[in-house]
Amino acid sequence: MSDILSFASDYLEGMHPAILKRLAETNLVQTTGYGLDPFCDSAKEKIRAACDCPEAEIFFLVGGTQTNATVIDGLLASYQGVIAAETGHISCHEAGAIEAGGHKVLTVPHTLGKISAKVIEKTVRTYITDESRDHLVMPGMVYLSQPTEYGTLYTLEELTEIHNVCQKNGLRLYVDGARLAYALANETNDVFLPDLARLCDAFYIGGTKCGAMFGEAVVLTRRNLIPHFFTIIKQHGALLAKGRLLGLQFDTLFTDGLYETIGRDAVRFAGRIQSVLQDNGYDLPFISPSNQVFVTLSDEKKSRLDRVIQTCFWEKPDDEHTTVRFATSWATTKEMVEKLISVLIELK
Amino acid sequence: MSDILSFASDYLEGMHPAILKRLAETNLVQTTGYGLDPFCDSAKEKIRAACDCPEAEIFFLVGGTQTNATVIDGLLASYQGVIAAETGHISCHEAGAIEAGGHKVLTVPHTLGKISAKVIEKTVRTYITDESRDHLVMPGMVYLSQPTEYGTLYTLEELTEIHNVCQKNGLRLYVDGARLAYALANETNDVFLPDLARLCDAFYIGGTKCGAMFGEAVVLTRRNLIPHFFTIIKQHGALLAKGRLLGLQFDTLFTDGLYETIGRDAVRFAGRIQSVLQDNGYDLPFISPSNQVFVTLSDEKKSRLDRVIQTCFWEKPDDEHTTVRFATSWATTKEMVEKLISVLIELK
Amino acid sequence: MSDILSFASDYLEGMHPAILKRLAETNLVQTTGYGLDPFCDSAKEKIRAACDCPEAEIFFLVGGTQTNATVIDGLLASYQGVIAAETGHISCHEAGAIEAGGHKVLTVPHTLGKISAKVIEKTVRTYITDESRDHLVMPGMVYLSQPTEYGTLYTLEELTEIHNVCQKNGLRLYVDGARLAYALANETNDVFLPDLARLCDAFYIGGTKCGAMFGEAVVLTRRNLIPHFFTIIKQHGALLAKGRLLGLQFDTLFTDGLYETIGRDAVRFAGRIQSVLQDNGYDLPFISPSNQVFVTLSDEKKSRLDRVIQTCFWEKPDDEHTTVRFATSWATTKEMVEKLISVLIELK
Amino acid sequence: MSDILSFASDYLEGMHPAILKRLAETNLVQTTGYGLDPFCDSAKEKIRAACDCPEAEIFFLVGGTQTNATVIDGLLASYQGVIAAETGHISCHEAGAIEAGGHKVLTVPHTLGKISAKVIEKTVRTYITDESRDHLVMPGMVYLSQPTEYGTLYTLEELTEIHNVCQKNGLRLYVDGARLAYALANETNDVFLPDLARLCDAFYIGGTKCGAMFGEAVVLTRRNLIPHFFTIIKQHGALLAKGRLLGLQFDTLFTDGLYETIGRDAVRFAGRIQSVLQDNGYDLPFISPSNQVFVTLSDEKKSRLDRVIQTCFWEKPDDEHTTVRFATSWATTKEMVEKLISVLIELK
Repeated sequence: MSDILSFASDYLEGMHPAILKRLAETNLVQTTGYGLDPFCDSAKEKIRAACDCPEAEIFFLVGGTQTNATVIDGLLASYQGVIAAETGHISCHEAGAIEAGGHKVLTVPHTLGKISAKVIEKTVRTYITDESRDHLVMPGMVYLSQPTEYGTLYTLEELTEIHNVCQKNGLRLYVDGARLAYALANETNDVFLPDLARLCDAFYIGGTKCGAMFGEAVVLTRRNLIPHFFTIIKQHGALLAKGRLLGLQFDTLFTDGLYETIGRDAVRFAGRIQSVLQDNGYDLPFISPSNQVFVTLSDEKKSRLDRVIQTCFWEKPDDEHTTVRFATSWATTKEMVEKLISVLIELK
Repeated sequence: MSDILSFASDYLEGMHPAILKRLAETNLVQTTGYGLDPFCDSAKEKIRAACDCPEAEIFFLVGGTQTNATVIDGLLASYQGVIAAETGHISCHEAGAIEAGGHKVLTVPHTLGKISAKVIEKTVRTYITDESRDHLVMPGMVYLSQPTEYGTLYTLEELTEIHNVCQKNGLRLYVDGARLAYALANETNDVFLPDLARLCDAFYIGGTKCGAMFGEAVVLTRRNLIPHFFTIIKQHGALLAKGRLLGLQFDTLFTDGLYETIGRDAVRFAGRIQSVLQDNGYDLPFISPSNQVFVTLSDEKKSRLDRVIQTCFWEKPDDEHTTVRFATSWATTKEMVEKLISVLIELK
Repeated sequence: MSDILSFASDYLEGMHPAILKRLAETNLVQTTGYGLDPFCDSAKEKIRAACDCPEAEIFFLVGGTQTNATVIDGLLASYQGVIAAETGHISCHEAGAIEAGGHKVLTVPHTLGKISAKVIEKTVRTYITDESRDHLVMPGMVYLSQPTEYGTLYTLEELTEIHNVCQKNGLRLYVDGARLAYALANETNDVFLPDLARLCDAFYIGGTKCGAMFGEAVVLTRRNLIPHFFTIIKQHGALLAKGRLLGLQFDTLFTDGLYETIGRDAVRFAGRIQSVLQDNGYDLPFISPSNQVFVTLSDEKKSRLDRVIQTCFWEKPDDEHTTVRFATSWATTKEMVEKLISVLIELK
Repeated sequence: MSDILSFASDYLEGMHPAILKRLAETNLVQTTGYGLDPFCDSAKEKIRAACDCPEAEIFFLVGGTQTNATVIDGLLASYQGVIAAETGHISCHEAGAIEAGGHKVLTVPHTLGKISAKVIEKTVRTYITDESRDHLVMPGMVYLSQPTEYGTLYTLEELTEIHNVCQKNGLRLYVDGARLAYALANETNDVFLPDLARLCDAFYIGGTKCGAMFGEAVVLTRRNLIPHFFTIIKQHGALLAKGRLLGLQFDTLFTDGLYETIGRDAVRFAGRIQSVLQDNGYDLPFISPSNQVFVTLSDEKKSRLDRVIQTCFWEKPDDEHTTVRFATSWATTKEMVEKLISVLIELK
């Protein structure tokens, strides 16, 4: 609707054409509500297969904050909190939804959005060795995002170490996969769906930012991990009446491996944008391997950029500069990227 | 997907074809997220016009329970509760979502799903005259549904009386319009959108059951009635990333008066089904003027019906009978109704 | 401090003299905080013995509403509610503390404050047979008070039936014993501490109204019934720093059977007041066997009574009458009762 | 009860003898419950006078965590959080009570337990300048403790600066005075009760650690700052039935300036202990001007100390050392201090 091209986020457009097509084809089909329909059944079956986890219980929710709040509430006892990076989405960008559910987010230091098995271990040690620990919030689970809010990726080795420290200390491990398709599509990535299913207690496969209109697929990797989770979802206002809409979207995304490939162009485009920025002397606070690129601009340059390209505010490192984010997505085209690159070169 | 015809609910199908069409047309348009897009702006303007309430603030949420929990939480102070019919949706069918938000539902007796100004007044009197009232939950607002869970309608006179008793006693008035289109489409109805906007503090215009894929439009009838409601929505996990989907749906529903007429056939069909049931000696627990019809069957008859028509369980009045609900909707066709009627006549 | 004699409640005075004596004797003794002291240890041992329940875990809290909110929160899963009489203390006189903790109170009809195994069974049946039960709040426990808010007592047979229906249906049984001493002291009572320990999952032995300055002793009748209950107590702001104060009080109350006898005079006095009221033609809404007596007066008579005797407002049955409560307690003396009786005879 | 002398905390003993005396004298006096009694009235009047704040509303609660959770819940809107030092009591030692009430603690860096106007300003700036601020928790108030958890004191200048930054940014200012008597008794202190009443929206005067058996006096420095706070207290399970106990204690503490002087010896003793430690080459992580002294010991020395003196675990700086806290209190005697000093000299 806007005249100017936007790279502000990866949820700027509607849905992958294959989803739109099936939505049209099935529009007047009658189904039962609340996810108890054949579309959901089929999608669940395909996700179980893709995760190589026949025991998995799958639930479809609408959005990311909702999913995090509901799953975390389901996994934690009232006296437990969730360990997360200071930069974790639940730590700072969910308007206190976790706390509104009664739980503390136990923030720990990060490296480019990632936390380590070591820092988790240390947090647990500090709790256990504190003689007043019964007056503290007990660490009950670990929250990661893959890719992280900085676009970085946990390696299989790192995730395995985190899994091990969780197992050893009775912590549940949960991965927020809002942008999971962009991790899976990355050439350097070595963490795949079966790895997540094997190493995590729960994770979610993001739809909203990865080709769906909306929707996130929660994978609970063991039966009855969260008893009565259906009712917990309902209580959180997170149960979609026409659940079939979610089923149909994930059924499409998990047909012919679409989900695993849908992010490829986006990651390639982001890499190219990042190279151009580097080649042209832009100030990149860090290198991101995923579909997000971060750059720090003087406010003067930023206001010139704003006239032609929409970006996302990230933070203000000082009073005269702003860090912005460019996000590519499944809907980004070569033409859009070329346009952006020419603007960036000119702006330099 | 099922072989048998279903009258189980009014959210069995996808969306009105006009919405599907616009969804397809605008699919790759880029917009900002979270409801800050031109589709939402346009929809809000149309709803303000339809409500004759230029001051109204409009917010789009995804589902009914979510909307009720979020609005009620926004309207109540921590020490207040919400008055509702014992049969109100928030009282019994929302898995405790209101209580999960910290608020008590103060249930009062009903007549076919409706509560009266008198019973509200009495509840407030009991609170005020109790010398221990500071130990009680203070009534802070009234929750109604129009139509009610029994399909009955408040008249303009009844709603005005309730408005007056709320004004007099400092109670907020909130109307759940999950099925509002079916009230508006009823020939006997005399409560229209401008009446709701004039008499209520807040209400919601239901989309999910009234032609939309999903979505409910909250109308706050005065500016700043709920400060920071955007953040409250986010905290409840109720903020849709691609808010434009909601805007587009309501923009379509409020173009050329579609919303006001979309329920007409459904109401007419329901009336016809009800007449046929009465004419054929079925046991109707009460008469419903809206798109829902209730009938009590012996369990034997019910199991025969189940083979050809899907219905919704309502309650078990005794061990040998079941009351079921038939719901029509915007998607119900003449052929479907004729099929149902012939089944009912045969089953008699 | 007031010139007029008060029968308004059973928490008008300070503490039993034996407690005051020990408080003075031990005032400057140093102990660890939070209930981890020898006074608490000793009190717990005595309570376990009195309950004939060596496995019991005992926790001391400060007040009744706090205890109910903390125990119920500890016993329920997030998706569960607590069954209670409409007249139960948690249903109406705790300012929504249970709901503030996120749980619904599932109110059921009562007879003079008591609920029956039958009504509990019916509530569970309704839940189980409802095909939409996953959208409802699951009954997770039963809350009773002994004596009830009407001063009535559950018999051993009634409590056993309730225990059985709870066992059969996976419900936890919890008894609020705010005034338990007055039940135990009643000649007609046949439910003793070992019965409560055998039939309930949890109950509390009231101190505040039964001779202590303050304090309630929670008895969890099985080990680890509520994991990390200490932390849950802390989280509810219910952990007293100088827990020894609670230990010392209950240690005194459970020395030489003081708790079992402390209510005897109060019950006898209440019986005598009730007889005098009946003999003098007063309007008693019901007969209460415990330390509470209820009488309905014209507002004119009430205002005359108010000049000489303080009572507790109970309810207004109509615009011209008020029901009031007289409560006796461990601190009530023969002289106080005689004074009240002479006033009542004169007022007649 | 223990054979060994304890400096573990400042709540090891019962109550100041003057309180015990009045408790005995008034034990059988009848009063109304819930703080509506003459003892409370008198105490409130005296506190208003001591604070030079005739408009103040005073409420008595039982313990510190309870008081913090209740006041913070009363002051914040649902979408707001509370700024506190990382080391603040609410941040780490209250078992998540603030989060259980639905609010996020927005932790900020500290210097020896104190936070600065500057860091508060920066936190607010970061919030305001973030274009996504509607997705964040809004800072709504500031929590300080005086003295802090490190025993340090805010100066009048520092508190005034914090007051100013709060005023400027619409933040409420709340001071936790759990150990306030030890601040007031400090020679270097220049923040007195009228300063707190003038600069804060709310604060509490600690009783539990300052001579009372238990109890904290909340001072709301403007009328109706928290509407219906009585009910909010009840809802939090924080309303003591026999409120007169709290009134009597604070009435005694605020008679003849007892509260302002009760901490003098404790502060002097702590200073002397600290000097001895320094003179003897102990490793003090920092100097504390209040009634708490911190020292880091090798675990070997600690275990020798443990045999004769009880201390409080503070933290483990590494695997071979432990930092412990010695606390003095109103009940500490010269003899106890001399005993400790001789032990420390010998242990050196």
